[in-house]
Amino acid sequence: MRLNEIGEFGFIKRFSEKHFQNLPKGYTGIGDDCAVIPNIGGHEYTVSTDMLIEDVHFVRSEIGGYLLGHKSLAVNLSDLAASGSTPCGAFLSIAVPGDVEVEFLDSFMDGFYKLSTVYGCPLLGGDTTGSRHGLAINVTVIGHCPEGRSKGRDKSLPGDIICVSGPLGDSAAGLRYILDPSLERNDNALKLIRRHHAPKPRILLGQQLGSISQVHSMMDISDGVASDIRHILQRSNVSAMIETTALPISPTLRETGLGSSTINELALCGGEDYELLFTVDPAFYTQEWANKMKITAIGRITAAPGQQVIYTENGISTNAFGGGYDHFAC
Amino acid sequence: MRLNEIGEFGFIKRFSEKHFQNLPKGYTGIGDDCAVIPNIGGHEYTVSTDMLIEDVHFVRSEIGGYLLGHKSLAVNLSDLAASGSTPCGAFLSIAVPGDVEVEFLDSFMDGFYKLSTVYGCPLLGGDTTGSRHGLAINVTVIGHCPEGRSKGRDKSLPGDIICVSGPLGDSAAGLRYILDPSLERNDNALKLIRRHHAPKPRILLGQQLGSISQVHSMMDISDGVASDIRHILQRSNVSAMIETTALPISPTLRETGLGSSTINELALCGGEDYELLFTVDPAFYTQEWANKMKITAIGRITAAPGQQVIYTENGISTNAFGGGYDHFAC
Repeated sequence: MRLNEIGEFGFIKRFSEKHFQNLPKGYTGIGDDCAVIPNIGGHEYTVSTDMLIEDVHFVRSEIGGYLLGHKSLAVNLSDLAASGSTPCGAFLSIAVPGDVEVEFLDSFMDGFYKLSTVYGCPLLGGDTTGSRHGLAINVTVIGHCPEGRSKGRDKSLPGDIICVSGPLGDSAAGLRYILDPSLERNDNALKLIRRHHAPKPRILLGQQLGSISQVHSMMDISDGVASDIRHILQRSNVSAMIETTALPISPTLRETGLGSSTINELALCGGEDYELLFTVDPAFYTQEWANKMKITAIGRITAAPGQQVIYTENGISTNAFGGGYDHFAC
Repeated sequence: MRLNEIGEFGFIKRFSEKHFQNLPKGYTGIGDDCAVIPNIGGHEYTVSTDMLIEDVHFVRSEIGGYLLGHKSLAVNLSDLAASGSTPCGAFLSIAVPGDVEVEFLDSFMDGFYKLSTVYGCPLLGGDTTGSRHGLAINVTVIGHCPEGRSKGRDKSLPGDIICVSGPLGDSAAGLRYILDPSLERNDNALKLIRRHHAPKPRILLGQQLGSISQVHSMMDISDGVASDIRHILQRSNVSAMIETTALPISPTLRETGLGSSTINELALCGGEDYELLFTVDPAFYTQEWANKMKITAIGRITAAPGQQVIYTENGISTNAFGGGYDHFAC
């Protein structure tokens, strides 16, 4: 069955009831011109939005409906995680060609719904419309956190320890398998492809780190550490040193047989990790705390001018790595 | 100059500074993973989102950059107006093919910015991305209003007077001139085309009506009264009578020379008026108040079963009008 057989309202009917039943007290969801989010005393509201375009951000036949629904919400929840917020709700706009199968859309909405229930982020509204050329998806998420406690990128200080929350490069390696049909899709490859298609937003960790005043800046890693750290450096007017041997690499990525140079490039430049990147007061940071939180220190914020990153390998500055670190201005 | 010559960040730089400078106290805007909207004590938050797709919602060469920027925000502000809200801010996602002229995008952002300053709705964040096939635009707006005072569609009562805020059908007539190159574009035609391209969100009227408890339901007219009133009937479980001779028609539309049957069809079914449709307690409504507010009574909510609309012409029920009112289930 195709979308143009059931129309816009037919499609909306298929998923709206269960989101409606999940609505927390005081909320108004799907069905009015505006959704209503109640006031949470002493809290401020955090908002982020991300757009996914067919054949730019995803290949429909590769990712499938369910994981596309998951990922559309996950990449937005990752932004809420980066600010240390608790989700309030999500808004989904979707432009769909009329010949798309309704079963694909049902799977999409199932993937979206499942993740929304895991993180308590009900679908509160949106827009459905036609498209002449492929799917266009936009999700806006709204969260809340105690007043003055949302994390940004502008509070890093020289001496801060730069940390990341999980293994880097898996998603980019997965994308490499998707884009190159000549590569064998063994078990490791399938795990990496899944990491690319089904990122796990770090909401709970974000909330924990958000509640620690000694965590100075925080963001999620969407374009790769090498590119994303620059936003913190620019907003905070600081520089950084990153130790490449400290980058957390998953056993799955190690076992692919890709060379360490390629693996480090994927970890620094690959993007779409959706892990957290943050800087911590060195007086607060301990190895014990890092182990408990399952986070990894990868470098230091410095007072050097120029908002530059210096990469080191075992403490020695290196400017040539698979063609030079300049490439890491991805 | 084309977009792919300056890239995503080059484009963002061209407009972000002036939005940044306009930021109200306590807000965090463009530049972090999340924007931050401060808590307004005693107020709740209202949210709406709308997507505009090239060649579905607009023809790029017809509307031009400036009015497209205006309209992208205006149709969203219209939803805030319908809930009686005061705008907090807007989020813009835009997918752009790399060969689009930067000057077009500058005009787009100028139109967006101008309207955002008129209604105090600063751009707080968004997403820019590439597109393979045409522009895709999504805007999310967030507003606030006193707790429990946002209007919905579910509070209409039998006896309520159905009102609209302004002339109907102009926008649909304008679209007719856009789509049919054989029609002469005289002064009237150009005015109607402008009504289609540059809707004026009824924010101030929405706030005034929102503060009146005897206004029971409210929505904006995006698909045409005949289609939109059904949402109120369904949500409030009531029926309606609409007097077709009461529909407010602008002198411009009257003077086009289109027959009265066509004009009424445009007014009822045309859509994209972005005026307000609301129902008022009859004990509150007076003609004097209607004149003062520049609103028009067009019918009554009834207790009849079936959530149906009966159309009348000078008080006499009519079921045949340019092919029958069934067509008004647009």
